[in-house]
Amino acid sequence: MAAAAAPPPPSEPTDPTPLQTKKPLGHPLFSRIRLATPLDVPHLHRLIHQMAVFERLTHLFSTTESSLFATLFPDPTATPTPPPFQTFTVFFLEVSPTPFPSTPHPHFTPILKTHHLDLPINDPDSDAFQTCSNDAVVAGFVLFFPNYSTFLAKPGFYIEDLFVRECYRRKGFGKMLLSAVAAQAARMGYGRVEWVVLDWNVNAIKFYEEMGAQVLQEWRVCRLTGEALQAYADK
Amino acid sequence: MAAAAAPPPPSEPTDPTPLQTKKPLGHPLFSRIRLATPLDVPHLHRLIHQMAVFERLTHLFSTTESSLFATLFPDPTATPTPPPFQTFTVFFLEVSPTPFPSTPHPHFTPILKTHHLDLPINDPDSDAFQTCSNDAVVAGFVLFFPNYSTFLAKPGFYIEDLFVRECYRRKGFGKMLLSAVAAQAARMGYGRVEWVVLDWNVNAIKFYEEMGAQVLQEWRVCRLTGEALQAYADK
Repeated sequence: MAAAAAPPPPSEPTDPTPLQTKKPLGHPLFSRIRLATPLDVPHLHRLIHQMAVFERLTHLFSTTESSLFATLFPDPTATPTPPPFQTFTVFFLEVSPTPFPSTPHPHFTPILKTHHLDLPINDPDSDAFQTCSNDAVVAGFVLFFPNYSTFLAKPGFYIEDLFVRECYRRKGFGKMLLSAVAAQAARMGYGRVEWVVLDWNVNAIKFYEEMGAQVLQEWRVCRLTGEALQAYADK
Repeated sequence: MAAAAAPPPPSEPTDPTPLQTKKPLGHPLFSRIRLATPLDVPHLHRLIHQMAVFERLTHLFSTTESSLFATLFPDPTATPTPPPFQTFTVFFLEVSPTPFPSTPHPHFTPILKTHHLDLPINDPDSDAFQTCSNDAVVAGFVLFFPNYSTFLAKPGFYIEDLFVRECYRRKGFGKMLLSAVAAQAARMGYGRVEWVVLDWNVNAIKFYEEMGAQVLQEWRVCRLTGEALQAYADK
């Protein structure tokens, strides 16, 4: 995103006001959270791979564009596809040097926000993450799906992944993505939003607690996978 | 279940064989795992309440029969209902002194098993848990729903609850319920089955590890609920 990497300098020479009466707004950047579509699969694949690199888990990464496509956007003529939020759902976070249009959507009206940054963001991968609209690039995503609490008899959301590309971190985008999921859950009357965090990631834990989350210390995740799971196929 | 509490004695006087040539079979009990239906909601409600009592969490229990009905079996004329396994799914475990009929089902053919118990089971709540069919009672349930791994690009199942009524514990029924979910996941080509366990519940952890599960020690569950979640509604 060349324009975001080199926005206009903070004080324009065309400004006619001799005294600095306006509040300095820094470098404007526009963001949008919207539902991902099948067209976003190549970007999503790149984002998940970057996440695997960040987590040093590329040895566990076996995802392809076509496997993502088949599992997240199955052919609606073959399988009745539930609407968004009732199955695996992806929000994309895009940023742009120019404002996004306001485009209502039957399932989710995009969230638009204007940011004023102290410094412009230099995005080395802007070409790889460019989207069709508005000179925008993808800066992050969140993938979530319904879960269920039998004590509340209410659905909730489980967040499987929340990822912001490196050059866009520490600017409130992670909070924006998590808030978007929480707001959707609250609007739908859902009971909980849950996710997991590594116990040594104290910064993330602090961030989540500041957002109102409890960290449940006593519970451990159990996982049956690979050959151990396959062994049950014929039982 | 009076019949299960007083099955025929192990050696019948009508047995014509003077020498004990047959393998002693103990007290036979027949079990069936099947998909729960809307008619099962009153039993499910009682089971979840028993689970809350067992976990000493009744102060968190706010579930009613009607809230279970509305969230697990929504009116298909109002909401397009996804088939079982694509949303919140409940398997019921029933036991009976007489064999269950073999009844194929379009989505899940029930799992039938014959058990030979050393002692008959005395079920003090048999009246409350009787089902319409076959002099059977409900002995437990498992509630699960799809989850998703972005590293595998595959769905899996998350088990929210697995519960066996007290008098039916330590007889392999918990393993039977968990295996049924694992087998279904494996048959569907899914990547993982996951659930959580309390870190001090060493017996449960041992049981899960023997079933092939890994216990992930580093991850902690984060939960946003109640007023902290509601605060996001209008953001």
